[in-house]
Amino acid sequence: MDILSPVSKPAVVLLSGGMDSAVCLALAKRDRFTIHALSVDYGQRHAIELDAARAVARWAGVESHVLMPLALRPFGGSSLTDRSMSVPKDGLGEGVPTTYVPARNTILLSLALALAEVRDAQDVFIGVNAVDYSGYPDCRPQFIAAFQELANVATQAAAEQGKCTTIHAPLINLSKAEIVRLGASLGVPFEQTVSCYDPTVHGVEVAACGRCDSCRIRGKAFSDAGVPDPTPYAAQR
Amino acid sequence: MDILSPVSKPAVVLLSGGMDSAVCLALAKRDRFTIHALSVDYGQRHAIELDAARAVARWAGVESHVLMPLALRPFGGSSLTDRSMSVPKDGLGEGVPTTYVPARNTILLSLALALAEVRDAQDVFIGVNAVDYSGYPDCRPQFIAAFQELANVATQAAAEQGKCTTIHAPLINLSKAEIVRLGASLGVPFEQTVSCYDPTVHGVEVAACGRCDSCRIRGKAFSDAGVPDPTPYAAQR
Repeated sequence: MDILSPVSKPAVVLLSGGMDSAVCLALAKRDRFTIHALSVDYGQRHAIELDAARAVARWAGVESHVLMPLALRPFGGSSLTDRSMSVPKDGLGEGVPTTYVPARNTILLSLALALAEVRDAQDVFIGVNAVDYSGYPDCRPQFIAAFQELANVATQAAAEQGKCTTIHAPLINLSKAEIVRLGASLGVPFEQTVSCYDPTVHGVEVAACGRCDSCRIRGKAFSDAGVPDPTPYAAQR
Repeated sequence: MDILSPVSKPAVVLLSGGMDSAVCLALAKRDRFTIHALSVDYGQRHAIELDAARAVARWAGVESHVLMPLALRPFGGSSLTDRSMSVPKDGLGEGVPTTYVPARNTILLSLALALAEVRDAQDVFIGVNAVDYSGYPDCRPQFIAAFQELANVATQAAAEQGKCTTIHAPLINLSKAEIVRLGASLGVPFEQTVSCYDPTVHGVEVAACGRCDSCRIRGKAFSDAGVPDPTPYAAQR
């Protein structure tokens, strides 16, 4: 037993089942936080990524894992939640893609802030990344900074006890290759994470399409990092 | 037909079924917005207020009304959503009461921002009030100002097209009596609104307890405004 280890503090970590949030979780684990993972099911096309989130949470030995349903589908407006829109597969285009979920990270951070207040946690982790990102506005540093300002005035803990919640976005300025290398150094089980927007399932096997924006970014990240890509891709890739 | 009337713009209005959001909705209606009402069921003790929201939305002739379930109950931490905590009935106390729902208005505004983006609306209305409020941190002007800053950087519409969403909190600096008078002047059907944290139902009749913080604030508001209080109170009040 390491008697020099600091007392563990609680933290809420947003966990999607993707690569970035798994590395983010691994950083919170490395820093000895007692982790409350929060996965939000906002009507994704596949429950596969929630299964991935469960597997990664188990790997990290989290204190609790809240799986929260959020019925964003009635809003429409994103090909990730609206079945009438198709996921683009022709490579990265200009501007914000249709896979953008309106105000997604604003919603996710709001829910994380609520859970943090209930769990008496003053730290929230989110694995957003502004470098090789797909053009989502709520992955930018100015978005995180604005949410931090909001958190400073939004909660009872902040208003009454001066206990502000710190929003950690430790991957925000890393390249995808750096995220892969960092995750590999922390032992992240990348083979259990899912990035694909349109995976296929054969029995218990999950295969990534290899063609959507997210697969293209992920594949390039492993290649650039010089780390073997453990992602199972569909044969017709 | 009034040919001088401006082209109607879409707006999202958060609608709880209570008194304040009904007056807020009436203001958006007066200002000729095409209204998309959003009611969030975050695990309130009673579906009564959602019924009230439906009635008020009908009165206002809204374009659409989204009823959104949000499972905050697993988070716990509020007597409004956690059945193991009791609603305080001994009068207004010091500090933030247990009826505070963690980060509630942050979550509600996040969802409204998402719906606004999907509906191509640049206006969001929320009926928060900082004057006679119960001590909730997320009803203060600095909270609304911080959310406005966040909205300015959070969405695709803001990032790509410079279309920022304006957060309207038109009741924020009004006293409860002023809100009652304003609502009365706009024809708000107050008898269909529900403020009580612990109402009772007898058949189709809904009766307010008359003793919780919210009932006390509401009763005093009508009294101070000199407007007859149409609220049905339980006999044992």
